[in-house]
Amino acid sequence: MAAKPSEKVLTGLQDSLVDLIDLSLQAKQAHWNIYGSHFRAIHLQLDEVTAQVRLASDDVAERLVAIGGEPDGRASTVASSSQVEALSGGRLADDKVIRQFEERLQGVSDRIKARLEDVEEADPLSADLLTGIATGLEKQAWMFRAASGDAS
Amino acid sequence: MAAKPSEKVLTGLQDSLVDLIDLSLQAKQAHWNIYGSHFRAIHLQLDEVTAQVRLASDDVAERLVAIGGEPDGRASTVASSSQVEALSGGRLADDKVIRQFEERLQGVSDRIKARLEDVEEADPLSADLLTGIATGLEKQAWMFRAASGDAS
Amino acid sequence: MAAKPSEKVLTGLQDSLVDLIDLSLQAKQAHWNIYGSHFRAIHLQLDEVTAQVRLASDDVAERLVAIGGEPDGRASTVASSSQVEALSGGRLADDKVIRQFEERLQGVSDRIKARLEDVEEADPLSADLLTGIATGLEKQAWMFRAASGDAS
Amino acid sequence: MAAKPSEKVLTGLQDSLVDLIDLSLQAKQAHWNIYGSHFRAIHLQLDEVTAQVRLASDDVAERLVAIGGEPDGRASTVASSSQVEALSGGRLADDKVIRQFEERLQGVSDRIKARLEDVEEADPLSADLLTGIATGLEKQAWMFRAASGDAS
Amino acid sequence: MAAKPSEKVLTGLQDSLVDLIDLSLQAKQAHWNIYGSHFRAIHLQLDEVTAQVRLASDDVAERLVAIGGEPDGRASTVASSSQVEALSGGRLADDKVIRQFEERLQGVSDRIKARLEDVEEADPLSADLLTGIATGLEKQAWMFRAASGDAS
Amino acid sequence: MAAKPSEKVLTGLQDSLVDLIDLSLQAKQAHWNIYGSHFRAIHLQLDEVTAQVRLASDDVAERLVAIGGEPDGRASTVASSSQVEALSGGRLADDKVIRQFEERLQGVSDRIKARLEDVEEADPLSADLLTGIATGLEKQAWMFRAASGDAS
Amino acid sequence: MAAKPSEKVLTGLQDSLVDLIDLSLQAKQAHWNIYGSHFRAIHLQLDEVTAQVRLASDDVAERLVAIGGEPDGRASTVASSSQVEALSGGRLADDKVIRQFEERLQGVSDRIKARLEDVEEADPLSADLLTGIATGLEKQAWMFRAASGDAS
Amino acid sequence: MAAKPSEKVLTGLQDSLVDLIDLSLQAKQAHWNIYGSHFRAIHLQLDEVTAQVRLASDDVAERLVAIGGEPDGRASTVASSSQVEALSGGRLADDKVIRQFEERLQGVSDRIKARLEDVEEADPLSADLLTGIATGLEKQAWMFRAASGDAS
Amino acid sequence: MAAKPSEKVLTGLQDSLVDLIDLSLQAKQAHWNIYGSHFRAIHLQLDEVTAQVRLASDDVAERLVAIGGEPDGRASTVASSSQVEALSGGRLADDKVIRQFEERLQGVSDRIKARLEDVEEADPLSADLLTGIATGLEKQAWMFRAASGDAS
Amino acid sequence: MAAKPSEKVLTGLQDSLVDLIDLSLQAKQAHWNIYGSHFRAIHLQLDEVTAQVRLASDDVAERLVAIGGEPDGRASTVASSSQVEALSGGRLADDKVIRQFEERLQGVSDRIKARLEDVEEADPLSADLLTGIATGLEKQAWMFRAASGDAS
Amino acid sequence: MAAKPSEKVLTGLQDSLVDLIDLSLQAKQAHWNIYGSHFRAIHLQLDEVTAQVRLASDDVAERLVAIGGEPDGRASTVASSSQVEALSGGRLADDKVIRQFEERLQGVSDRIKARLEDVEEADPLSADLLTGIATGLEKQAWMFRAASGDAS
Amino acid sequence: MAAKPSEKVLTGLQDSLVDLIDLSLQAKQAHWNIYGSHFRAIHLQLDEVTAQVRLASDDVAERLVAIGGEPDGRASTVASSSQVEALSGGRLADDKVIRQFEERLQGVSDRIKARLEDVEEADPLSADLLTGIATGLEKQAWMFRAASGDAS
Repeated sequence: MAAKPSEKVLTGLQDSLVDLIDLSLQAKQAHWNIYGSHFRAIHLQLDEVTAQVRLASDDVAERLVAIGGEPDGRASTVASSSQVEALSGGRLADDKVIRQFEERLQGVSDRIKARLEDVEEADPLSADLLTGIATGLEKQAWMFRAASGDAS
Repeated sequence: MAAKPSEKVLTGLQDSLVDLIDLSLQAKQAHWNIYGSHFRAIHLQLDEVTAQVRLASDDVAERLVAIGGEPDGRASTVASSSQVEALSGGRLADDKVIRQFEERLQGVSDRIKARLEDVEEADPLSADLLTGIATGLEKQAWMFRAASGDAS
Repeated sequence: MAAKPSEKVLTGLQDSLVDLIDLSLQAKQAHWNIYGSHFRAIHLQLDEVTAQVRLASDDVAERLVAIGGEPDGRASTVASSSQVEALSGGRLADDKVIRQFEERLQGVSDRIKARLEDVEEADPLSADLLTGIATGLEKQAWMFRAASGDAS
Repeated sequence: MAAKPSEKVLTGLQDSLVDLIDLSLQAKQAHWNIYGSHFRAIHLQLDEVTAQVRLASDDVAERLVAIGGEPDGRASTVASSSQVEALSGGRLADDKVIRQFEERLQGVSDRIKARLEDVEEADPLSADLLTGIATGLEKQAWMFRAASGDAS
Repeated sequence: MAAKPSEKVLTGLQDSLVDLIDLSLQAKQAHWNIYGSHFRAIHLQLDEVTAQVRLASDDVAERLVAIGGEPDGRASTVASSSQVEALSGGRLADDKVIRQFEERLQGVSDRIKARLEDVEEADPLSADLLTGIATGLEKQAWMFRAASGDAS
Repeated sequence: MAAKPSEKVLTGLQDSLVDLIDLSLQAKQAHWNIYGSHFRAIHLQLDEVTAQVRLASDDVAERLVAIGGEPDGRASTVASSSQVEALSGGRLADDKVIRQFEERLQGVSDRIKARLEDVEEADPLSADLLTGIATGLEKQAWMFRAASGDAS
Repeated sequence: MAAKPSEKVLTGLQDSLVDLIDLSLQAKQAHWNIYGSHFRAIHLQLDEVTAQVRLASDDVAERLVAIGGEPDGRASTVASSSQVEALSGGRLADDKVIRQFEERLQGVSDRIKARLEDVEEADPLSADLLTGIATGLEKQAWMFRAASGDAS
Repeated sequence: MAAKPSEKVLTGLQDSLVDLIDLSLQAKQAHWNIYGSHFRAIHLQLDEVTAQVRLASDDVAERLVAIGGEPDGRASTVASSSQVEALSGGRLADDKVIRQFEERLQGVSDRIKARLEDVEEADPLSADLLTGIATGLEKQAWMFRAASGDAS
Repeated sequence: MAAKPSEKVLTGLQDSLVDLIDLSLQAKQAHWNIYGSHFRAIHLQLDEVTAQVRLASDDVAERLVAIGGEPDGRASTVASSSQVEALSGGRLADDKVIRQFEERLQGVSDRIKARLEDVEEADPLSADLLTGIATGLEKQAWMFRAASGDAS
Repeated sequence: MAAKPSEKVLTGLQDSLVDLIDLSLQAKQAHWNIYGSHFRAIHLQLDEVTAQVRLASDDVAERLVAIGGEPDGRASTVASSSQVEALSGGRLADDKVIRQFEERLQGVSDRIKARLEDVEEADPLSADLLTGIATGLEKQAWMFRAASGDAS
Repeated sequence: MAAKPSEKVLTGLQDSLVDLIDLSLQAKQAHWNIYGSHFRAIHLQLDEVTAQVRLASDDVAERLVAIGGEPDGRASTVASSSQVEALSGGRLADDKVIRQFEERLQGVSDRIKARLEDVEEADPLSADLLTGIATGLEKQAWMFRAASGDAS
Repeated sequence: MAAKPSEKVLTGLQDSLVDLIDLSLQAKQAHWNIYGSHFRAIHLQLDEVTAQVRLASDDVAERLVAIGGEPDGRASTVASSSQVEALSGGRLADDKVIRQFEERLQGVSDRIKARLEDVEEADPLSADLLTGIATGLEKQAWMFRAASGDAS
């Protein structure tokens, strides 16, 4: 049996899991409802986000259960505890989607980074996993930022 | 511009979409939390369900938008309107998972089939799409039924 | 558990299954015993028939069991209940093989089509599956018909 | 030999064939002559259309000949009988291409759908084939519609 | 023209062919009708048996015809001359399937081995082919034996 | 901006483009309507011609636009300006197809070769591209010539 | 030339190397000798362990030599210095194998983690490599733990 | 160093090598010069022969050198010592090619089989290699025999 | 040893090499620093340019050394002798990048074409290589030109 | 159940298994510790040996268990019963590695060949398997012998 | 928008970028100009270095821009600010290349490692990325060191 | 029918064909008989030569027959008319092989180049084909020259 996991690590992983699942659902939602002259570029970019974020959520959940936690990725849990700002329903204009995903991707990464120090101390293996995921999210965030015409 | 879509078709597709997304989240939830001597077989089977159901939900959502609808696959919508019975949190014994997924897969297919006649009349293209999806769900349901030791 | 299947659907699928398995055995039989100046073309064509028909029989049998039937594809059942005309033993001349397979492929498709209406009513999912299979058989039948020098 | 095909089925397939071939030639024509800031996205999208429509025209022609028809896809036949509105020669601005292909893809699908009932009655196999093709065309039409900035 | 083949070689190959074809049909029959808590593992294992045995029967039949024989793999021949014990119809419990296939795979191999000496003398090439096939069957037999909980 | 292209080069490429598109449509037309004992071999060969000629026409059109031309590959342009002799409608006997394609492939290559000197002088890059295409066409022409039983 | 490596890093890597090689030999040993109703699932799982652990041992050994060490993975060294508890000879019951590998995988990871702090200080690159390996071992350990019916 | 090889084994391998290289050159020669209505089928079949025979000659030569021999596959050696009957120059009619390759493939196999007993005694490893090669040649020989219309 | 190469050929290849390497560095520089609403399309297009130009520079350098030259692709050589206009540092707006790469791609091609005649005379093999590279550059230049909204 | 296996066969396979596992460990040991100007060539060659020998040991162990034996490939068994001469620890000069592996590969093959006659009599299937493995080892031995500059 | 990046992180990444690009150009330069009896081994090894280092420089530049920096990888910047010792022009003897690349690869890694602590504090994500790159460089350095005949 | 080919073109292609086939046989001969410390590098390089030269000879022969010639690649023709200097029999030292293949590859290319002007005039398509082949040969020649330690 694995050693008793730290509460902070369990919370850090579960909170990241919920954010990542929500992000993957939002990316698909936008993939379907987007319109505007940049439709195709963003439509495809969002599918890359979905694929990358799904892999990340799978890794996080399996790390959680490997250290003795109980990952919770059910729709109701995601709906009630995700910290990602909700998307509005209906069609979504492309320029708005670009700004929304730049913020959401950076936001999920920022929350992961804020938890890193606590996790690192108790479980460097989980911290290493989260570090790689955050790096990937920031690369995606940059791509939307660049597409928003923001040179900074 | 596409012709004005029938309300029944829009509802039929949107209801199917929500069920399918919920099913994919539940399949992942069980994929992570399952335990028992049949762990590996069901763990892998659930990933096949996830992959198949994700493709199906993508097809349904893109058909919805193609006929002028606005697919809604956000976490809160799934949490509030899915007709798939919720999974309990925490670890899940393998035999229970087998029974739960046999029922849920068959249930989603049954609801799709109940809508087929209405959809067929108004939009045979959508009906054809849903027919193929239901056939796939019933094949998966059989596999769980057979694994439950139910010879009928 | 799945709903009680209609007798007509079970019979329609079982009869198709037996014909398809017999067809795959005959295609291999001819693949081995054929001779004549068109040996290679027909030898290869017969392997495409085998591959396509094996997939079809697998789909039919799995649909049968998914709706609660008990597919029977044993050698004795195939030998006694297949409606495909038997091949004679020994070497087979290529022109004769071409005519025989044009007839057998069309024949199996014709019998499937004759059952479609009954099946459609009781189980549109099974009907949809059989429709696709029959279309594939008729495409193969055309290829043998064209090779027989029949321009009609 | 296959049974005598219905005149309505033959006509339905031949008319669809001509429209699909014309669509593939127009997609290539636009693929080459398009210009504008969305060049790359539409240039690539048009090649997807070409690939999908070429497969569809091949399936339709082979179904036609399988039921005893004589598919006619020669340049002169396409030029004289296609119902797809012609493209003008010379360079094509990207926004205009987007609108033209949204209309043409939807138009070919609408004409196929208008023929479905007649074909279904006489030859459900051909109807099933055309249904799948029309679904694919409408998905492509949506992608151009979304790119035109039309949120409906 | 090839030299006149020995009667013993022809019989040895034909008898092996019939057993192998019957084994492939039985493996598919069990693949469809199996149930029990080990459903998935055995369902998949049986498809590996089918694939391996189909390749083996193809090699045997083509060797037969290459040395001047006339392979006979028709359903009626298989039904009447196979030495593999028949499966009962209907659903099949997984533990019973495991025992049945351990016996049948070993049995077909034992019959091939009993013929090897005669074949070796007259046609070492055919003997070499059969040797490789028997080795493969015994590896499969072991896998079912191990799954039956038989440690010997 | 690219330098002003020579009229001879533009004409040489446009004339080649039209011939190549027509050839690809004729190859598909024959692919569908051919019959005779050599059906399969020629049916497959014609699909190789189609694939090769489509690539060639794409290269020619993109070269045309790269040097400032406006490639015209619309059905009406192909119908009115192609120099490839038209195929008759309806079914086509295999031996006739063989002779027709030997002539048409060689013919298109001969016309390309006749233009090479003019093109070479003004635009060696276009000449190099056309040279490779003509070589490929002559290889295909030989294959039909050999199949026609013409040893020369 | 690389800088002089720390003794602690060399020891940490060499000890890990020996454990990993022993684990790969034990996984193969069990892969061959396992029996019981879960044969197939564990037989396959053990091959995944083997593949993953072989890659890990290769990475560790090459890191060792890259920093100037002399990796020792000879049979006698593994036999005398591995800290992984030995397997008994002969056939191995599946439930026992499951428990043994859960313990051994977790044990190797625990020993690697105990060395991480020392290694991190002297050579963060080696620490990073070992961190990723331990994470992979713990994921494998969880899979065996879950299969043992241990829900914690 | 390897043990001193038997003269019979060296000769058996060298003679086989020369025949196989000659066969591969002849297969290419016919691949290029064949004509007749079966051009495509035989043209492709001959390339399969070339590929298979080249692999065989490589295996034989590397076995020769592995046991201490000096394989000689130079053009002059092949020209002077091959026992395969020479092809005439110039174009080759397809029916004649079929007969020639049936004889040559069977002939090379017959010569290999005649050497097997001697080789087996001194070097069973080389004998095993030659056995597999001869089986492959006889399968190819059958394909040409069947194409020649010879049912025996 | 290869014959003594002409000075003009050596210079022509070396000058092309430097331009091509510089182009590949600039394409990467823009790939990273670009921003604007067309970010994704141009970001991806620039990676295609990089891949194509790297292959071209490798071919040119290996041709140079094959004829006895000494290719020089060091950073300082590229910085001092490239004729491609330098990019400014910092972020780059997408519309500007489009214009810059249209010009640079066309420019490198123009310089290669200007050297072709001299090279052709002394070394037709090198000229043939450069011709193919220039054709590829002009195709890329067209794509940027078309994206700049320039219809000519 | 399989027939009772002969003691000689069991011993022959077990002894071969131990040698093969030891060889794979030694090949990796040398792969890591080798140095000298031929580093890369031998480093890569040793990985081919590892891959080939691992496959061989897996086949031997699975044959052993298939006939009722209990393969023993544990580190302690390998260390105590392998007949392959041990490698010294520490770095290994490339020329020495070449000689050592030529000898070890040939040695393992020689021991397998010495057992072949006994095994052949009792179990021709195992003999056939070992024959193929020995052939592969001798091919590898030749490659090291050739690299040692030994022309014999 | 991303948070304001630390100056030390920006500098650390930019300096690494320049070194990596220079290394990739030098690896290609040596790939082309190398000669000596180890030509092929080192020629191939250098292409692996190029591929690995190009990926690393891409990751570093994209991390730089993701955190708000402006990566500069232009030829003039590389030429003026790279800390990698320049290669001399002209042909390069293989033994010298081996020594040069061992030093340069180790040197770039050493400089990255010297920056790690500063970067780690301000941006652990960038530090994690650089750690993986340095590990890869040291593995390559070892390969050249081993090839130089340096056993330490 | 193709136009009457020029005698010079036929001769140029036939002479190239014979040289290329001889080169491929010699490359295999050396691939087998080479020994020396550079065994592996040259052994592998020679297989690349074989593959490249076989493709070239196939292209040349098919061009020959496409223009109405009769390619002659029989062993006796190659033995009597090849202009490539013969290899001696028996084992071949690696350094000698390197020098021999540098000369032979350059020699075949030189003879092709000497024929180019005549061929170009009569048949630019054949000249273009031969140009590409000669470029490939010179690249291979350089690799052997570089490996011989010849810096020029």
